Amino acid sequence: MKTVVTFGELMLRLAPNGYLRFVQADSLEATYGGGEANVAVSLSNFGLDARFVTKLPTNEIGQAAVNSLRKYGVDTSNVVRGGARLGVYYLEKGASQRPSKVIYDRAYSSIALAEPKDFDWDKIFKDAEWFHFTGITPALGGGVADICLEACKKAMEKGIKVSFDLNYRKNLWSTEKAQEVITKLTPYIDVCIANEEDAEQVFGIKAGNTDVAGGKINHEGYKEVAEKLVRQYGFKMTATTLRESISASDNNWSAMLYDGKEFYFSKKYNVHIVDRVGGGDSFGAGLIYSQLNSYTPQASIEFAAAASCLKHTIEGDFNLMSVAEVKALAAGDSSGRVQR
Amino acid sequence: MKTVVTFGELMLRLAPNGYLRFVQADSLEATYGGGEANVAVSLSNFGLDARFVTKLPTNEIGQAAVNSLRKYGVDTSNVVRGGARLGVYYLEKGASQRPSKVIYDRAYSSIALAEPKDFDWDKIFKDAEWFHFTGITPALGGGVADICLEACKKAMEKGIKVSFDLNYRKNLWSTEKAQEVITKLTPYIDVCIANEEDAEQVFGIKAGNTDVAGGKINHEGYKEVAEKLVRQYGFKMTATTLRESISASDNNWSAMLYDGKEFYFSKKYNVHIVDRVGGGDSFGAGLIYSQLNSYTPQASIEFAAAASCLKHTIEGDFNLMSVAEVKALAAGDSSGRVQR
Amino acid sequence: MKTVVTFGELMLRLAPNGYLRFVQADSLEATYGGGEANVAVSLSNFGLDARFVTKLPTNEIGQAAVNSLRKYGVDTSNVVRGGARLGVYYLEKGASQRPSKVIYDRAYSSIALAEPKDFDWDKIFKDAEWFHFTGITPALGGGVADICLEACKKAMEKGIKVSFDLNYRKNLWSTEKAQEVITKLTPYIDVCIANEEDAEQVFGIKAGNTDVAGGKINHEGYKEVAEKLVRQYGFKMTATTLRESISASDNNWSAMLYDGKEFYFSKKYNVHIVDRVGGGDSFGAGLIYSQLNSYTPQASIEFAAAASCLKHTIEGDFNLMSVAEVKALAAGDSSGRVQR
Amino acid sequence: MKTVVTFGELMLRLAPNGYLRFVQADSLEATYGGGEANVAVSLSNFGLDARFVTKLPTNEIGQAAVNSLRKYGVDTSNVVRGGARLGVYYLEKGASQRPSKVIYDRAYSSIALAEPKDFDWDKIFKDAEWFHFTGITPALGGGVADICLEACKKAMEKGIKVSFDLNYRKNLWSTEKAQEVITKLTPYIDVCIANEEDAEQVFGIKAGNTDVAGGKINHEGYKEVAEKLVRQYGFKMTATTLRESISASDNNWSAMLYDGKEFYFSKKYNVHIVDRVGGGDSFGAGLIYSQLNSYTPQASIEFAAAASCLKHTIEGDFNLMSVAEVKALAAGDSSGRVQR
Amino acid sequence: MKTVVTFGELMLRLAPNGYLRFVQADSLEATYGGGEANVAVSLSNFGLDARFVTKLPTNEIGQAAVNSLRKYGVDTSNVVRGGARLGVYYLEKGASQRPSKVIYDRAYSSIALAEPKDFDWDKIFKDAEWFHFTGITPALGGGVADICLEACKKAMEKGIKVSFDLNYRKNLWSTEKAQEVITKLTPYIDVCIANEEDAEQVFGIKAGNTDVAGGKINHEGYKEVAEKLVRQYGFKMTATTLRESISASDNNWSAMLYDGKEFYFSKKYNVHIVDRVGGGDSFGAGLIYSQLNSYTPQASIEFAAAASCLKHTIEGDFNLMSVAEVKALAAGDSSGRVQR
Amino acid sequence: MKTVVTFGELMLRLAPNGYLRFVQADSLEATYGGGEANVAVSLSNFGLDARFVTKLPTNEIGQAAVNSLRKYGVDTSNVVRGGARLGVYYLEKGASQRPSKVIYDRAYSSIALAEPKDFDWDKIFKDAEWFHFTGITPALGGGVADICLEACKKAMEKGIKVSFDLNYRKNLWSTEKAQEVITKLTPYIDVCIANEEDAEQVFGIKAGNTDVAGGKINHEGYKEVAEKLVRQYGFKMTATTLRESISASDNNWSAMLYDGKEFYFSKKYNVHIVDRVGGGDSFGAGLIYSQLNSYTPQASIEFAAAASCLKHTIEGDFNLMSVAEVKALAAGDSSGRVQR
Repeated sequence: MKTVVTFGELMLRLAPNGYLRFVQADSLEATYGGGEANVAVSLSNFGLDARFVTKLPTNEIGQAAVNSLRKYGVDTSNVVRGGARLGVYYLEKGASQRPSKVIYDRAYSSIALAEPKDFDWDKIFKDAEWFHFTGITPALGGGVADICLEACKKAMEKGIKVSFDLNYRKNLWSTEKAQEVITKLTPYIDVCIANEEDAEQVFGIKAGNTDVAGGKINHEGYKEVAEKLVRQYGFKMTATTLRESISASDNNWSAMLYDGKEFYFSKKYNVHIVDRVGGGDSFGAGLIYSQLNSYTPQASIEFAAAASCLKHTIEGDFNLMSVAEVKALAAGDSSGRVQR
Repeated sequence: MKTVVTFGELMLRLAPNGYLRFVQADSLEATYGGGEANVAVSLSNFGLDARFVTKLPTNEIGQAAVNSLRKYGVDTSNVVRGGARLGVYYLEKGASQRPSKVIYDRAYSSIALAEPKDFDWDKIFKDAEWFHFTGITPALGGGVADICLEACKKAMEKGIKVSFDLNYRKNLWSTEKAQEVITKLTPYIDVCIANEEDAEQVFGIKAGNTDVAGGKINHEGYKEVAEKLVRQYGFKMTATTLRESISASDNNWSAMLYDGKEFYFSKKYNVHIVDRVGGGDSFGAGLIYSQLNSYTPQASIEFAAAASCLKHTIEGDFNLMSVAEVKALAAGDSSGRVQR
Repeated sequence: MKTVVTFGELMLRLAPNGYLRFVQADSLEATYGGGEANVAVSLSNFGLDARFVTKLPTNEIGQAAVNSLRKYGVDTSNVVRGGARLGVYYLEKGASQRPSKVIYDRAYSSIALAEPKDFDWDKIFKDAEWFHFTGITPALGGGVADICLEACKKAMEKGIKVSFDLNYRKNLWSTEKAQEVITKLTPYIDVCIANEEDAEQVFGIKAGNTDVAGGKINHEGYKEVAEKLVRQYGFKMTATTLRESISASDNNWSAMLYDGKEFYFSKKYNVHIVDRVGGGDSFGAGLIYSQLNSYTPQASIEFAAAASCLKHTIEGDFNLMSVAEVKALAAGDSSGRVQR
Repeated sequence: MKTVVTFGELMLRLAPNGYLRFVQADSLEATYGGGEANVAVSLSNFGLDARFVTKLPTNEIGQAAVNSLRKYGVDTSNVVRGGARLGVYYLEKGASQRPSKVIYDRAYSSIALAEPKDFDWDKIFKDAEWFHFTGITPALGGGVADICLEACKKAMEKGIKVSFDLNYRKNLWSTEKAQEVITKLTPYIDVCIANEEDAEQVFGIKAGNTDVAGGKINHEGYKEVAEKLVRQYGFKMTATTLRESISASDNNWSAMLYDGKEFYFSKKYNVHIVDRVGGGDSFGAGLIYSQLNSYTPQASIEFAAAASCLKHTIEGDFNLMSVAEVKALAAGDSSGRVQR
Repeated sequence: MKTVVTFGELMLRLAPNGYLRFVQADSLEATYGGGEANVAVSLSNFGLDARFVTKLPTNEIGQAAVNSLRKYGVDTSNVVRGGARLGVYYLEKGASQRPSKVIYDRAYSSIALAEPKDFDWDKIFKDAEWFHFTGITPALGGGVADICLEACKKAMEKGIKVSFDLNYRKNLWSTEKAQEVITKLTPYIDVCIANEEDAEQVFGIKAGNTDVAGGKINHEGYKEVAEKLVRQYGFKMTATTLRESISASDNNWSAMLYDGKEFYFSKKYNVHIVDRVGGGDSFGAGLIYSQLNSYTPQASIEFAAAASCLKHTIEGDFNLMSVAEVKALAAGDSSGRVQR
Repeated sequence: MKTVVTFGELMLRLAPNGYLRFVQADSLEATYGGGEANVAVSLSNFGLDARFVTKLPTNEIGQAAVNSLRKYGVDTSNVVRGGARLGVYYLEKGASQRPSKVIYDRAYSSIALAEPKDFDWDKIFKDAEWFHFTGITPALGGGVADICLEACKKAMEKGIKVSFDLNYRKNLWSTEKAQEVITKLTPYIDVCIANEEDAEQVFGIKAGNTDVAGGKINHEGYKEVAEKLVRQYGFKMTATTLRESISASDNNWSAMLYDGKEFYFSKKYNVHIVDRVGGGDSFGAGLIYSQLNSYTPQASIEFAAAASCLKHTIEGDFNLMSVAEVKALAAGDSSGRVQR
């Protein structure tokens, strides 16, 4: 079984039931999530050996976070225990014209205050073929950025492929700081996932004239961004999801892959949304899985797009789809007929 | 009050809340359902005297199943108690591109192991005007197929109309076995409900070129199938629902009736689905009700289509609509405005 | 902070979970609502000082009703306690072709049996700038109609603006009785909210040829009604929401304002409905807020339309949106993208 | 199967979950209950043919009330439909030193406003052997008291036994009014269930020195009351439950029967309470069942005491125990060991 | 209405349903609580004007916290908004031999990082008669300790009575630090609530030989501690609750008051626990209420003990009892009989 | 880390919420459990490497069962997938005098139909030190009894200790069959857990005069049984729990260990029950843990008794206690005071 390592933060996600607003909630659904953990769970559901690395407090809340990953078969033996707290994020699910709302309470978490000595990358990377992390992780704090760099170097040293999901979060750092830190990491990155906004914020790469709020997609702009990313930073591959936000309830969803030579666009799905958080992560997992299994570029982007389309129909951060289910959709059956 | 008898299996239906996947569920909604029981409940809600016949275990789970029917006024005095277990089916509700999933755990149930001597059809059919069952029932096992045949013969003897919903289930039997068993039953059947797939699987009757997965409907193909069914098996009437699966969340829904002379098509509804299980059964109930009340063919198919359209908006297997509510939709008010 | 007084009934609202029908419910969501209370809560959420006036029983159920308003900052110090019971309304949420259903059990409530001496309008109107009530309130009974008239007179005396939402309810009174009572109130009313049906039922003012059940909107008809209302009753302003009911799940929603000179139409929203009860009240609150803050007529109707569009995405009677959130939608961002 | 008729009010019971207070509840458990309906359900669970008579509104809430009885097999074919509303009672469950709280909202209900012509007692009493009602029913209003008297006369005429549970409710009527009305009914009553408080309030019969609030039981006082009841009113049998309230969580529970000759005391149970509402009604049902089946007086009071002891362990008004389960406890197994 | 000001932290309380352990919880009950907020809510339920002072973040989670107090009528107009986060505490309810577990995640909260300039005590104390806080508040951090001191001085200046609940929390500070900070506050404190453990940890005052874990109470030891507290720190009154922990499900509960002259012991209650968090705070509120209303010392300690006994039967931190309910228990009715 | 292997059935456990009876349940709590799986989870929570062996269907319900173990760190890599169904058991929780009720629906499960060739014991037992199973497993069917025997032989061969919990289930087999099968297994068993009933049913070993239903414990009788077991079957150690059933809500709980020389009795606990299912299994786990860690006999039985006492306070089959928590109770702190 191929082994993928992901590294980042795992948070407690607290969400009111259904479409209740925060002020209406007497009870909060408690699940766990975070970019790289989401990728690990999805890969484990695809049958890979997924190893998630983070630091979590030693209390029972930290244990519950560990258990949420073990349940889906993720290898948590490299999770370091210690530090003060588990990061929390509050999620209010939007509907129709009312947007979803996320409130982060992640400062001072165990992972944000972690130090390089907490992690032994030689041990962590044993038998691994792929390493994945997102732009959120180095943004957590200086120590974590250093850990990312160390991990990247070690990965290169061991011939492990590295994928990186740009995922710029303005609440965590400035574009200047992001650019400074991430530019140090790019030399080690093979596959970069970045949408237009991320590319602009972090690298100052600007596409033509896509109107994100308006929900229109400009294929040429995306191609332009992808080409610039590859040219300027030497990635072997870039990929992006193409989200057209019709409303909080309905999105169009497709994706593009650029292998430095050709552009590959997936089918487009009209998605009636159950839970869109983790959509990007499920795309990353689909891309990693299909690349590790040597799919053709077109098959790879179709698999990743179908996987992430399906994530939008699942509650929680985690994509709980099997390879067979993703393939069925990628192969064209989107009728939703009952499977008996 | 007109009396209708239905015969088949009643199962415990276990479904995760909302759109949770099976692996996420810590709690399962426990309701009861099964093709012929669903028809009985719908007819009782329409004001008819509905008598449901099955065999259920004597334990409290069997009792809860009985109670679920009594609650809606179904006459359960002919339910035989005994045998080992209540069949179970697990239902995971799909959304958008993710299909619903049904896992059956119905083997060895009390009804599947029932014997002809368990049922006294003279008593059961007292004062009855209509008898209904589906293709699932004879598929449960050899004894049950024999019971069906006996019931059919007795119904004919007593001048009771017989309707039959083909409902081929590949998990229960092969097409060969189905054809063998069902062909013995057809001489006793007045009204046959069958969609294209069923007709092809059981009778080898194939329509032109409808693409079921693609969700497109081919009226000519349906007519062709209906005509062949009547010609070959001598049914007095055939009817079918016409489902266009846009996704697990949205379907188009209409229906066709063929009285051996003319084809009658209902209005088409764009349904935003709450729960589509039991949609076909609610159609059968609508057809039986409208036929028993001597509706014109067009009015009959409109009533049956509207009834089953509305079922898609109701949680659980049972169609909990009154005649007045169905008529309001059949008469054209689909605006969903608040009724005060 | 500007102060608005609203007067009317507050009821316990009992609704099955999700899309369950009444007969399926083992548990009922218990919230509170009523036209004028809904307006007060929305205004309080907009940052105004909202004062709600009613009469509630002294028992714990009455107290829970009070608390439901205090929670959102509404001033309940003028709520009179006494009388026999809290009115109740049962709400079954519709979906797709199945309409929502409301069953009222409000007769003999504390407010319906209230007497003029229960309320001291000099004290109630202290520092107030606006008074709002709906046509439901005088319909509750003779004493309450008298109280409304007394309040209107006192408001005029004090130079307080009066808005009135026609809201004709056929279960509460006949059109004759409504016309008789309301015509006594009109001289004191500055702003009248009335849709076509209300105008026809209460004032016999009939628009051209809008087909309400069919969900089509006839702008000219609405203009005609508005003009007649202003001409015949001397309102300074009339406004109406324009609902196109596609189904119980999807509506188009916009609004019109007429200031006696020009007609102003808002943008139109395609709303995927979470809960449409209180939609009209949230429109009223949006109108009052924007008028009190001297918005231009176009900005005012856009604000009111956006506010009430958003109400459709919120569970319960109350509109729990901030001014900033309403403005963001009015300004054009309806993409529903996640706010982090 | 022996047939028992009971007549009274069926209400919607609304209770916060668990031990929440009313002001904390966002959701209310919705079940149905009422003295005589509770008796009917318990008797149906004991295997008798129980026929419940009342008047309920024609709306869906009334229908849900009917369904709650049909579910347990109660014959509801004599329930009259019409009138304005279903009575409601709100129940807050107490714990330890905090008492349970009941708020009634039952005035103006369909049954309270019913008239003698609504009920055809000849039809209702067909094949019946026993008639049961409580002191709450004539207290509902003048018309209902008349209906009770008519029913009692008809019962005597037909040789049907009549049992009556005194159940004085101070919120419904004065002791004077109660005495006046009930004294007209006593000549028709065979079995009277009355505790000390009831006997004192309604008949002015006072026992020695039992301290109810203190939870102490005075056997001699109970005997004295029973003897006086029989002597003064000619009942063939009186019975009473003996509750010692240690706290809202723990009660001691036993019962006494007096057949005009001897006093029979049941075993005493230390009950850890799940839900004590309906405890008295379950005792009545136990008494009726055991009398109808000709138990010895000691066996009868043991059965009734055990039945009502078990009711305290069941949520809701209804006693959902079988004869076998009651007998097992009456026979002495109170160890609560798991039944596999 | 008498006005009481309380100052401290308000936290989000997250608790698994019922008796689930943290690792089992998929959903967390979300309520709000904190020592001084709990006192404010209880006093507001007693009919006093309770003013709560704290600092809360400006986001929706902070707003939900504000709303949780407004609901019960607490004056929140002096709550400062700003800072980073709302403190959180996780609560796992114990049962029988399994203890309850609390995990705090309160560091870096808005109030912990508040500064003296955030609060204007002249405005806050307008018309106030009493000021209350606990030992947890100065423990939150240096700035908060300074704020406490400033508030105490201002209270003395204005002739406002000050009560202080020692409440030593070892997770927040050392005994040395606690003693250093609290000794500066004692000169301003009139009423000190302190149990033996607190007194020993903070003041080094040690009682004879009470065995806390063993659940035995030593009256003489408590008297000794109370006398030393008054003698050494000049409090006008000290009070303490006397908890005997039989198990997580059952406690004995009573209290003692020392007015510098006499010792007053309350009745002792055997409490079957629903939720014991906030028990001490409800005692403080009972003491403040009874003192403000000039109860005799014995009546005062009986009221406070009964109030806090009842708190153990209520879910959440807040004591939701009225004065009448507390008085009924203090007067001796602990039978828990249903109140109709 | 020491490795323990357990082998048996894992079932889906379906239980109504709280104290609802089966016929009241609209929703069932879905957890998983089974004797040996329960032991594995408890040992994993104690920090051992627990390996659970069974056969589960390949569908999603089987996967959910696997996940329920992985969540707690149990090694499921030796779970065989295949066969038809997952066994189910329905659990109705009793209270006070009402006993809990278990309905099994486990026939024809994947494990019941498993064959010896499904399991490779050489691989399964790699590095293992202990093997545990119960009398339920060989009772599942002939193939499974053979598998047990094969596993026992292999364990002896490898020097792995074998513990066996007699656990006679009359629904699964006759005492004759049980004796025949189990007598073949005894030569391989080191530690036998057996209560009096089991010993009598399976081995015909009868203690003096303990009255199980009456809840009284007879120490001498238990000693007699233990001695006979060791003498006749050569076990190195026997142990038993001593349950005194006061009611379904309250039990006394202690345990005895006999090492062939001395008898060791644990402390006795008065347990207020949350969920008693799995109590015996948690005792087995406690015994295995303490034996594997070389506790003295007295410490061992205290640990096992405390562990299983605590299980009674936890919902579900699994004992979710840490070693530290168990030791705290075994060391004497049963006060249930809040742990902060």
